[in-house]
Amino acid sequence: MPDSGLMPEPSLTVPETMRAWVLGGPDEMRLTEKPVPVPGRGEVLIRIDAVAICATDLEIIHYGTPALVDGEPPFNKDFTIGHEYMGTVAALGPGVDEVAVGQRVTVEVHAGCGQCKRCRQGMYTSCHNYGQRAKGHRANGFTTDGGFAEYAVNHVNTIIPVPDRMTDEEATLVVTAGTSMYGLTELGGLVAGESCVVSGPGAIGLLAVAVARSLGAYPVILTGTRESRLEIGRKLGATHTVNVREADTVEAVRAIVGDKGADYVIECAGTEAAINDAIRMTNRGGKVCLAGFPHDMATVDLPHVVKNNIYLYGIRGEGRSATHRAMQLMADRRFDATLIHTHTFALQDLPEALRHARERVDDAIKVVVKARGAAALCQEAAE
Amino acid sequence: MPDSGLMPEPSLTVPETMRAWVLGGPDEMRLTEKPVPVPGRGEVLIRIDAVAICATDLEIIHYGTPALVDGEPPFNKDFTIGHEYMGTVAALGPGVDEVAVGQRVTVEVHAGCGQCKRCRQGMYTSCHNYGQRAKGHRANGFTTDGGFAEYAVNHVNTIIPVPDRMTDEEATLVVTAGTSMYGLTELGGLVAGESCVVSGPGAIGLLAVAVARSLGAYPVILTGTRESRLEIGRKLGATHTVNVREADTVEAVRAIVGDKGADYVIECAGTEAAINDAIRMTNRGGKVCLAGFPHDMATVDLPHVVKNNIYLYGIRGEGRSATHRAMQLMADRRFDATLIHTHTFALQDLPEALRHARERVDDAIKVVVKARGAAALCQEAAE
Amino acid sequence: MPDSGLMPEPSLTVPETMRAWVLGGPDEMRLTEKPVPVPGRGEVLIRIDAVAICATDLEIIHYGTPALVDGEPPFNKDFTIGHEYMGTVAALGPGVDEVAVGQRVTVEVHAGCGQCKRCRQGMYTSCHNYGQRAKGHRANGFTTDGGFAEYAVNHVNTIIPVPDRMTDEEATLVVTAGTSMYGLTELGGLVAGESCVVSGPGAIGLLAVAVARSLGAYPVILTGTRESRLEIGRKLGATHTVNVREADTVEAVRAIVGDKGADYVIECAGTEAAINDAIRMTNRGGKVCLAGFPHDMATVDLPHVVKNNIYLYGIRGEGRSATHRAMQLMADRRFDATLIHTHTFALQDLPEALRHARERVDDAIKVVVKARGAAALCQEAAE
Amino acid sequence: MPDSGLMPEPSLTVPETMRAWVLGGPDEMRLTEKPVPVPGRGEVLIRIDAVAICATDLEIIHYGTPALVDGEPPFNKDFTIGHEYMGTVAALGPGVDEVAVGQRVTVEVHAGCGQCKRCRQGMYTSCHNYGQRAKGHRANGFTTDGGFAEYAVNHVNTIIPVPDRMTDEEATLVVTAGTSMYGLTELGGLVAGESCVVSGPGAIGLLAVAVARSLGAYPVILTGTRESRLEIGRKLGATHTVNVREADTVEAVRAIVGDKGADYVIECAGTEAAINDAIRMTNRGGKVCLAGFPHDMATVDLPHVVKNNIYLYGIRGEGRSATHRAMQLMADRRFDATLIHTHTFALQDLPEALRHARERVDDAIKVVVKARGAAALCQEAAE
Repeated sequence: MPDSGLMPEPSLTVPETMRAWVLGGPDEMRLTEKPVPVPGRGEVLIRIDAVAICATDLEIIHYGTPALVDGEPPFNKDFTIGHEYMGTVAALGPGVDEVAVGQRVTVEVHAGCGQCKRCRQGMYTSCHNYGQRAKGHRANGFTTDGGFAEYAVNHVNTIIPVPDRMTDEEATLVVTAGTSMYGLTELGGLVAGESCVVSGPGAIGLLAVAVARSLGAYPVILTGTRESRLEIGRKLGATHTVNVREADTVEAVRAIVGDKGADYVIECAGTEAAINDAIRMTNRGGKVCLAGFPHDMATVDLPHVVKNNIYLYGIRGEGRSATHRAMQLMADRRFDATLIHTHTFALQDLPEALRHARERVDDAIKVVVKARGAAALCQEAAE
Repeated sequence: MPDSGLMPEPSLTVPETMRAWVLGGPDEMRLTEKPVPVPGRGEVLIRIDAVAICATDLEIIHYGTPALVDGEPPFNKDFTIGHEYMGTVAALGPGVDEVAVGQRVTVEVHAGCGQCKRCRQGMYTSCHNYGQRAKGHRANGFTTDGGFAEYAVNHVNTIIPVPDRMTDEEATLVVTAGTSMYGLTELGGLVAGESCVVSGPGAIGLLAVAVARSLGAYPVILTGTRESRLEIGRKLGATHTVNVREADTVEAVRAIVGDKGADYVIECAGTEAAINDAIRMTNRGGKVCLAGFPHDMATVDLPHVVKNNIYLYGIRGEGRSATHRAMQLMADRRFDATLIHTHTFALQDLPEALRHARERVDDAIKVVVKARGAAALCQEAAE
Repeated sequence: MPDSGLMPEPSLTVPETMRAWVLGGPDEMRLTEKPVPVPGRGEVLIRIDAVAICATDLEIIHYGTPALVDGEPPFNKDFTIGHEYMGTVAALGPGVDEVAVGQRVTVEVHAGCGQCKRCRQGMYTSCHNYGQRAKGHRANGFTTDGGFAEYAVNHVNTIIPVPDRMTDEEATLVVTAGTSMYGLTELGGLVAGESCVVSGPGAIGLLAVAVARSLGAYPVILTGTRESRLEIGRKLGATHTVNVREADTVEAVRAIVGDKGADYVIECAGTEAAINDAIRMTNRGGKVCLAGFPHDMATVDLPHVVKNNIYLYGIRGEGRSATHRAMQLMADRRFDATLIHTHTFALQDLPEALRHARERVDDAIKVVVKARGAAALCQEAAE
Repeated sequence: MPDSGLMPEPSLTVPETMRAWVLGGPDEMRLTEKPVPVPGRGEVLIRIDAVAICATDLEIIHYGTPALVDGEPPFNKDFTIGHEYMGTVAALGPGVDEVAVGQRVTVEVHAGCGQCKRCRQGMYTSCHNYGQRAKGHRANGFTTDGGFAEYAVNHVNTIIPVPDRMTDEEATLVVTAGTSMYGLTELGGLVAGESCVVSGPGAIGLLAVAVARSLGAYPVILTGTRESRLEIGRKLGATHTVNVREADTVEAVRAIVGDKGADYVIECAGTEAAINDAIRMTNRGGKVCLAGFPHDMATVDLPHVVKNNIYLYGIRGEGRSATHRAMQLMADRRFDATLIHTHTFALQDLPEALRHARERVDDAIKVVVKARGAAALCQEAAE
């Protein structure tokens, strides 16, 4: 070992093996027993206390990871998905003293390789060695083992301490807020007093409303189809809501922000119609964040984009340390992220949890799985 | 007059009326006699010495201006188009001392209103009072009278001095280079050693090659269909060219820049296929400038955009003082912009000049019209 | 009139003359009767309802303006100072429809010329025609008549609408908050979860605490000498305070933020000691805003600056539309700016108001003068 | 080893030990035999072919490193200094495939830890774990062994391939040009047509002239005391030079750029007088890079800084991948960096080489030491 004398820190008692859900073929999840992973240099072992289900988890289970690892789908490789988790530091790899064993932490997804051009620019979520484990890249739950398990290894760069007064469930939502914050960061970040539209009241969209309003954006307009979601949006800070089933969305937005259109749009619906609405409601020189994940080619109004000097920012996940900034806003209780947490299940009941998320049972938004504890967990959080 | 004592400067002898081409109905251009305009506060009267034809001029003649003025098309209003001109300062309006009567100058298109939010941000080409003359906005040749005439009025912000050793013809090309420079500016500007692809070897594309290479981009790859244009691109600085009729463009680019793809793409073709190629050849975290003007909705690979954290910058014309930076590179002879100047005509022969540009007679790229001088001008510049 | 058909809007009944304080020789202020000014193109006439006293007003009265106008001091020119005012729109100049007669508005100081290189960049407070009225530059209270009068003319770019529920007194504080916001903007703006120190609990410093905390900075440390001011700082959002008389400031800050030092420091004291403390408490790669106005050359630790890649941002007043962003935070009641408003006087009692501000009578911070109303105003606002 | 199967690549024949100069007490350099270091994960072993002497080397030999490592000076620790070197890749550590054994490469100095907040922002030269080897930080020649030896280990992030046609000597100058490029990057980077002053015609200053002019800055003014250096500056691109012994520097610069002052100043002299000149010649809203390393506190005109909204950027070394951009300009032969290379010595003659650099024998600028080859090298490069 040429240049380090750092040894791993003493650890909590960590078992040799753990329960972990793994992905067999498409749509096949099974609970198995796996070795507890060992943190390498700059890494941390986390005992997982809670993990939220993201829409992308449902995608991966069915289709595989969006970016293939080494050109291969993740099926039948004992791969554990799940990327929105939090827990307790259980052991430290060499070179880590930023956190301590026993500390509560939550995580973000992407640890860049640290040696490609994007990582050197601070753009670690756009790492050019995405999916190459040997290069040091990790995207837990996407290309490296994730959080539907009792333990996971994270690079220290993806660790964020959790304040005492924040619950485990709320802490699983920080990375979602971080994604919203990243979008707002890339749009310029200085949103106080600027008009901001969020289309699509899923988890990212709802927290985009919360983050934008926390930073002073005004008005903050949420558009969507379901009144129940719009209602949560208003609680999270939306100053106006538009039900796209009841109005011409672009006209409704212009009626609020003025004929010029909106300064910023965070598009989280991912549909062709929503993307075109987003473009057309943006004012000259305005910016659109494409945070929803369209599955297919979309026919879009690029003439409007070019004619109006509009910029489109495709983002996938968090970045630019945005999750740290989102955590601060949540630690300060600028908004109540738990409004989007609807259900809780025990780890062994993951299939039922996934069903709730997939079928939006009881209008599920964020379904959280708790790795420890009894069947008593299997209840609605709202109780 | 509450706060200024400035009076107009002495002027050259300026006639009362001038020859000017005006747009009747669609596709109807006629030469007429109009009053010479009078420069207002912050404005300059320019005696036009040369004006280049832009593809957008052909559009306006046929379709009208891209952004309607006060909701109206420009037809049958004695409107003079033409925006790529240069000339000699003939008179100064109040409050102008940045230039002197008799000085040779070239112009950029957009003078913002100066009092909307975008103008206050320095984004004058995205002025929110676009087309509103009463607010002070001018886009000569688009919403206010332009350069196919003997005189034009310009806001002083759109004036750039021309060095003695630069010909009139070359000076008409500065605003085109400025558009290319604006695109590179918005992509980040620090392109030395970064891979840069330009798709579409029209005037903007060819000068994008020149500007990018001047700033140190490497490699600089030009893609297009016509070998003669690619050859000019190589003379202007393209380190590689790809004939899109002979190769899979994305594969060919990757073969040059590596499998990750290119850092920056300046898309100047405006076709659906070129836009999708641009998106797909861009690497993770890379950026695409949409500088071509697509007429129609386009079906594009937004999944690739989102999955790869790609940003798309729709630009229309110059901005951010980019034309001044482009002028410096041209004044320094970093590239020979005159390679794209192919034909010259006299003002009275504008219809023939337009035909050359429209039908690409003799592979015309930039066709220049000289307001003064005899029929002797009616020849190819290349002679 | 070459380019505008806009006529002035109907106006409130505006008298021909008004009461106005003017600056005779140094330290000589006298109340006089002046013509009410007439708004020019893009300008607005404001009936002044309230005006706050800034420390710079005291400077100008004694020393003259910081940047001389046309090389001349402002003495004995019937010049009216005062730049932190608000009021009611009384008349509109040509080309203005952004505000309406009768609307309550507050102001920022700088209207750039709109035609220098800095104005074209959006840096209107760094206008290269500073002080040149004929070029269109205005800095009311510095180079053009200001607010210790019944009426003033403002360029529309310096006007910000005041919400109904905000008092006149609070509205005078918006430009101060805008200065703090400008400082934070220039430091990067993304301060959530970043450590931020403010040195000097004057008006700008106290509102810098408020703005930084509103945007999520944490911790926010205020340093100063007077406990009463630090107490106000805590009410405005300071998470920690350091009394520089009782502690080694740099050590005390490091004890809070960690040995690396702070991310951002807003230096508002302007003393040599405070500037060096600011530099030395900043971490590697951190940033210092010099918002205090040092009178004299200062002996500073530039070796520390260079060795630690620290950047220093000298700012003077607001900029980059920051006042609009500050207004939004105040309209949202993110902090209670009125905590720094300590005294109110009637316009005719300006000398007494100035004395309170100069001598910090009753620990005066912001002393507000109300242009209208009776002697009953002559009381402490805190009553 | 939890997540990597990468093994070290096959290597050139590398001896067990090597000749290396080490620093004893202050001003004591001795040639010794040391083990050849072994590259760790992400690291490369370089056989050093040439190394240039930097003024900072002379500082370290006499005073120790500017930032102490673990609070300790570097004396009597078998420490090898020297940071401007180039050579041939001799072996690869695990996880490296960006370069190949046998490839010619040059280096930049700073490899950040990769896990502090600055490294995550891409500001690796401002690493918060500076000097902490156990954290992965390396600053070869400052805190880890450097280049006055036959071999050195570098993190792959600090490696830049050298084109065939570039000599070893020229390649040692790339990191100096990279420092200049970093300064220009931090000032904004878009310098074409902007006025740029460089004060201090040392190696960094001279290459700052070259880089600024290459990017289109105009005018580029070099100020200094020695006519011979100014002459080299003119060859490297200075459009004007000012001998500070013969003129009031600020006045002389204003005579060239106009009364407003210069847009950008790169201050490389490090003296109090030069720093104040730099500040005072900068225009409103302009920027100053402090690239010279002042030893002592300096009494500076901060009132001018604050009053004119001037920003000061203290930099130390390269950063933001600027060295890669500088390499591209040098590979393109935009300027002839070898003009600053004046002397060459063999490795065993390092003391004589240092004396030439220290005493500026024969007006030495860059003195290069070649690790291999005979006494024949001991000659002036200019022969």
